Amino acid sequence: MQIAIPLYEDFTALDAVGPYEILSRIPGAEVVFAAVRPGPVRTDMRSLALTADASLAEVPSPDIVLVPGGPGTAEALNSEPYLEWLRGVDAGTSWTTSVCSGSVLLAAAGLLTGRRATSHWICMELLEAFGAVAVTDRVVMDGKYATAAGVSAGIDLALTLSGALAGDRVAESIQLVVEYDPQPPYDMGSPAKAPASLVESLRESNLVVTA
Amino acid sequence: MQIAIPLYEDFTALDAVGPYEILSRIPGAEVVFAAVRPGPVRTDMRSLALTADASLAEVPSPDIVLVPGGPGTAEALNSEPYLEWLRGVDAGTSWTTSVCSGSVLLAAAGLLTGRRATSHWICMELLEAFGAVAVTDRVVMDGKYATAAGVSAGIDLALTLSGALAGDRVAESIQLVVEYDPQPPYDMGSPAKAPASLVESLRESNLVVTA
Repeated sequence: MQIAIPLYEDFTALDAVGPYEILSRIPGAEVVFAAVRPGPVRTDMRSLALTADASLAEVPSPDIVLVPGGPGTAEALNSEPYLEWLRGVDAGTSWTTSVCSGSVLLAAAGLLTGRRATSHWICMELLEAFGAVAVTDRVVMDGKYATAAGVSAGIDLALTLSGALAGDRVAESIQLVVEYDPQPPYDMGSPAKAPASLVESLRESNLVVTA
Repeated sequence: MQIAIPLYEDFTALDAVGPYEILSRIPGAEVVFAAVRPGPVRTDMRSLALTADASLAEVPSPDIVLVPGGPGTAEALNSEPYLEWLRGVDAGTSWTTSVCSGSVLLAAAGLLTGRRATSHWICMELLEAFGAVAVTDRVVMDGKYATAAGVSAGIDLALTLSGALAGDRVAESIQLVVEYDPQPPYDMGSPAKAPASLVESLRESNLVVTA
């Protein structure tokens, strides 16, 4: 079972690494990080690069694709090689998935038209503009399309997928291995829990996608 | 404020990337990934490499150090350059921190002797063997030493640190940006919640540290 994570400049690291940490532990899973051009790909904060071991062309038929988000989504929206690859591999995937603004890329590729999907809370209007039906849930499944909310939501998505792919026992084992027993010291992880002033100031800062 | 994350072969990606995703968003923070030799460093699952942009020698005086864990801890325990760097920089840090079995490395460097600390649940005996007082909490603070439990616990540690460094409002803003509102689809993230048979089978598999 091959799981492709297609990177692009200025993606958000945790969008990709959270799900990788879970999905790579499924027995029989092979995760491959790819990009239009292989080599180091810088994250949005610029202080980290992940290596894309393969070009997209070298990964023509993954079983699962997981598209990360980040401010670089705005530029990737104009990358026809990236969007064309998404369209091509989607024809053969068992799951096509995304984290954060990655769903905007799936939608821009025409894969979420009329489908229920989620994204980072800052990107919900953009997701709708590309034809998806935006849903404010942490993980949204519509057929083989599974999308997660912002950044850290990819971990919850990946555990859900692990259960669907390999059964509850495997997913629970992975949860125990990565000790995913979250105890956030604050409770402001969604716009519904945050003061409107903070939500607005972050919305204006365009931290996630500036498209 | 410089935050150093010293990598070594076979570290666990999320141990490093979870905290990076939080800490790099603190205004004024500069995160640097380093290693004995700069360049790509492979994670424990081998399908991912993170770039160490600097050698440890090029990062002589970080304000904060965060040591990730992973199966590679066993080998890193024998790396005198790595342990010596930890001892050296600790003299000038405002916080010396770790995730998962990274605390075993801090302890092996002599920095946690008699101090309360935590680690991945599989490594608690090893942590004690190196002189720390092992505590089964998700995040443990003893003076300037802050340690987190396994893998995903680094996110909770980093949010706690963000609050201590920059105030609650900044930490809450970061939590909202990374949409950290966890909704795990299973509830087996700690040994206390898992069947003894699963805990034992994972303990025997030595998934985290084989020292």
